[in-house]
Amino acid sequence: MHATFKEIPQQAIDLLQEAVGQSFLFTDTATLQDYGHDETENLQYPPQVLVKPANTAQVAACVKIAHNFDLPVVTIGGRTGLSGGALSIHGGIAIAMERFNQILNIDEKNLQVTTQPGVITQVLRDTLATHNLSYPVDPSSQGSCFIGGNVAENSGGARAVKYGVTSDYVLNLEVVLPDGSIIWTGANTLKNATGYNLTQLMVGSEGTLGIITTIVLKVVPVNPHNILMLVPFYRASQACEAVSAIFRAGIVPSALEFMERDAIDWTLKFMPEVQVPVQEKIQAHLLIEVDGTHQDVLFAEAEKIAEVLEAFELDEILFADTEDQKNALWKMRRAVAEAVKANSVYKEEDTVVPRYELPKLLAGVKAIGSKYGFQSVCYGHAGDGNLHINIIKGNMTEEAWQTQVPLGIKELFELTVSLKGTLSGEHGIGLVQKNYMPIAFSDLQLRLMWGIKQLFDPKNIMNPGKIFPDYITDIQK
Amino acid sequence: MHATFKEIPQQAIDLLQEAVGQSFLFTDTATLQDYGHDETENLQYPPQVLVKPANTAQVAACVKIAHNFDLPVVTIGGRTGLSGGALSIHGGIAIAMERFNQILNIDEKNLQVTTQPGVITQVLRDTLATHNLSYPVDPSSQGSCFIGGNVAENSGGARAVKYGVTSDYVLNLEVVLPDGSIIWTGANTLKNATGYNLTQLMVGSEGTLGIITTIVLKVVPVNPHNILMLVPFYRASQACEAVSAIFRAGIVPSALEFMERDAIDWTLKFMPEVQVPVQEKIQAHLLIEVDGTHQDVLFAEAEKIAEVLEAFELDEILFADTEDQKNALWKMRRAVAEAVKANSVYKEEDTVVPRYELPKLLAGVKAIGSKYGFQSVCYGHAGDGNLHINIIKGNMTEEAWQTQVPLGIKELFELTVSLKGTLSGEHGIGLVQKNYMPIAFSDLQLRLMWGIKQLFDPKNIMNPGKIFPDYITDIQK
Repeated sequence: MHATFKEIPQQAIDLLQEAVGQSFLFTDTATLQDYGHDETENLQYPPQVLVKPANTAQVAACVKIAHNFDLPVVTIGGRTGLSGGALSIHGGIAIAMERFNQILNIDEKNLQVTTQPGVITQVLRDTLATHNLSYPVDPSSQGSCFIGGNVAENSGGARAVKYGVTSDYVLNLEVVLPDGSIIWTGANTLKNATGYNLTQLMVGSEGTLGIITTIVLKVVPVNPHNILMLVPFYRASQACEAVSAIFRAGIVPSALEFMERDAIDWTLKFMPEVQVPVQEKIQAHLLIEVDGTHQDVLFAEAEKIAEVLEAFELDEILFADTEDQKNALWKMRRAVAEAVKANSVYKEEDTVVPRYELPKLLAGVKAIGSKYGFQSVCYGHAGDGNLHINIIKGNMTEEAWQTQVPLGIKELFELTVSLKGTLSGEHGIGLVQKNYMPIAFSDLQLRLMWGIKQLFDPKNIMNPGKIFPDYITDIQK
Repeated sequence: MHATFKEIPQQAIDLLQEAVGQSFLFTDTATLQDYGHDETENLQYPPQVLVKPANTAQVAACVKIAHNFDLPVVTIGGRTGLSGGALSIHGGIAIAMERFNQILNIDEKNLQVTTQPGVITQVLRDTLATHNLSYPVDPSSQGSCFIGGNVAENSGGARAVKYGVTSDYVLNLEVVLPDGSIIWTGANTLKNATGYNLTQLMVGSEGTLGIITTIVLKVVPVNPHNILMLVPFYRASQACEAVSAIFRAGIVPSALEFMERDAIDWTLKFMPEVQVPVQEKIQAHLLIEVDGTHQDVLFAEAEKIAEVLEAFELDEILFADTEDQKNALWKMRRAVAEAVKANSVYKEEDTVVPRYELPKLLAGVKAIGSKYGFQSVCYGHAGDGNLHINIIKGNMTEEAWQTQVPLGIKELFELTVSLKGTLSGEHGIGLVQKNYMPIAFSDLQLRLMWGIKQLFDPKNIMNPGKIFPDYITDIQK
């Protein structure tokens, strides 16, 4: 694919090599291919050169070179992204952050952690746990995603329903701007009413406004107890309806996950080591967790949830009695995406609506699927109104896949927006959703956002071709 | 003061009157004076004309007129601001939002409320409470401040330590931009990874980027039980130290307020109806609240707090046994600012640091006061590291007040920044702190923020002369 890009001048390569050292610059095809994908479909867009800087000064040096030579820069984290945000679609320089793998300071006195962005989220969580502290944001990819990528995409996860998403924990960021200068976005405080919120502007900006090089996060005390239950529903629509009923009863579960029948079946087939009994007529499950400091309170909450659920048609609730059972249920839930992927070519949409609108969204997905001839498997963070819709290629013709599915997706997003929802809850827009942005935003809104992009990055070198629909970026050309 | 401003053309006045109707446009001195102050010191900056629009279309019409005639626009809420954000320092048009006083939709199914910005925060809270819902952000001024002002300033309050600040609840905003166009900033969802976060850019932007006309807030279930205790410390420094010790014990109180001895004494003198026994040698108090769904859990938490406090020298803890006692303690806490104001001319600083740094901040305040010859009374949201420092004029000469105090404030902010804190936790920068901004931000950071301001408001008509230090805004002149 390199052929289509402007060649990177040797002088730029030499300078990059000088910046990061010879052993941390790569131009061989195998490495470039390896850094040319994330977890988005089967997309492959390798960079022309890859560097692995060791510190902020080296990142800044690389970005300055890119700035001087007008070369695209893509920041690469754990390559677990689901919207193609880390793909080098215009070639150029990729900056892999894997050497930023140090937790710099666990500040128990202030309940904060300062970390480099290349730390794997689960490593961060496990390390904090040894200090009896919790960073409660747990994306399904936590075993391999980077915390920096979580900040860039504003990742969520199963516990967001109680604990919030990444943005709720980010206090302050060190960022290399697109001209190579370095700023901190805020202060290490829980409250801040001092100037515009650059921190939250950076969170979720998908690598288009700068490169995050240090992260200060709030952490919280660990809630040591939890109860986990798997609830089988005879009707998927009722599973969705139960979600808002639980909240209306005054309960805030620490997780409230929805899985369609197919999601469970495919996952159990994919992971034969996990055993979960599923009755034939079950259409969907809710996986519900409550957590807290007092086990007896949790028993009371679980009982109240069971009472709320009596209004719905369900099979027997499975309470996970042991840590092993809990782990098996979570393993199953986290493996759904992978199981779907193993089963067929697919596209994943990350729709989000106010949670009471979930039944309408689910019904709409199925109707749209019928109209355009595709099957879908739905699951996700129902407590947040965040439904992952996996559109399955299965036996569809390539032509139908290329022509009908995009029409269906467009209609799907129109539905989410009409329900006061939006395109993405936690995966970001990146490459694959960018041309759907006009469904959620007016031209005026998009131009305001694009104005911010131009303010930070007038040369449009920082992760170009992401977030913004082509019609907006074409203006600059 | 009008004399110094460009006269507003009669044509503009006529158009404004047409936009809002004759009875909602004011040019009489009494009204303009009345809208020429907030709660910031004794400052008085009346607008040249005041309008009270009834709806978004009228706001947009007024802003378009301002835009066409190049006139400053200041949005006025409850006039309880503490940084001079709503003062018409350049005259022009003031837009009072008091007719935007409707709660538009309490959406119990989605735990959201859609409200107009001119609703008094306490009215919103009380109305939600009748639905067994909580909007838990409770600034001390809640009895008269507007929810729109809370969003503009990113207000906090006593419960922020557990429940967060205004920004944590804002899901979506309708905003009139400085050219009179209207946008929504996001979606009505709990999670959103769709484009740049315009919502959080607007929150805390102090009326400089647009006028908020509709607000969608997240609400939460009510925690029906609480325990409130007043803890008297022999040493103020130990009260500060105790704050972080409580969190480190794994407790997250719903309020953790610090009051210096003088703050309590002045308040009790100011409100003789409130009776709180205070031993002679007591230097400071902590007011600590825990809340939740189970009274027995709260008893256990209160006991654990008492255990933690055994490490400090304190007098007997007062547990508020009745609702009346609780109300009296909260009334006292909320009246501190007013009591200080009644006692002397003063300046209030809204410093915030990581909470463990509070003892250093308090010691620093006193040392700086000694150096520059001023007395201070400190109180505030210690759980957030947010210390309100009231610098008392008392018997200081006018000359010392004008020359020494600003030097002391500069040093104070340098101290907060050196402790990884910043200038304002919840009051905003507005007019009175703007020239201290270079202490917290580099020129690069300020120019980025100013770039955002110019993007939204290229004519600089929207609340001009706020947030940004004069040296930045002078560039445009």
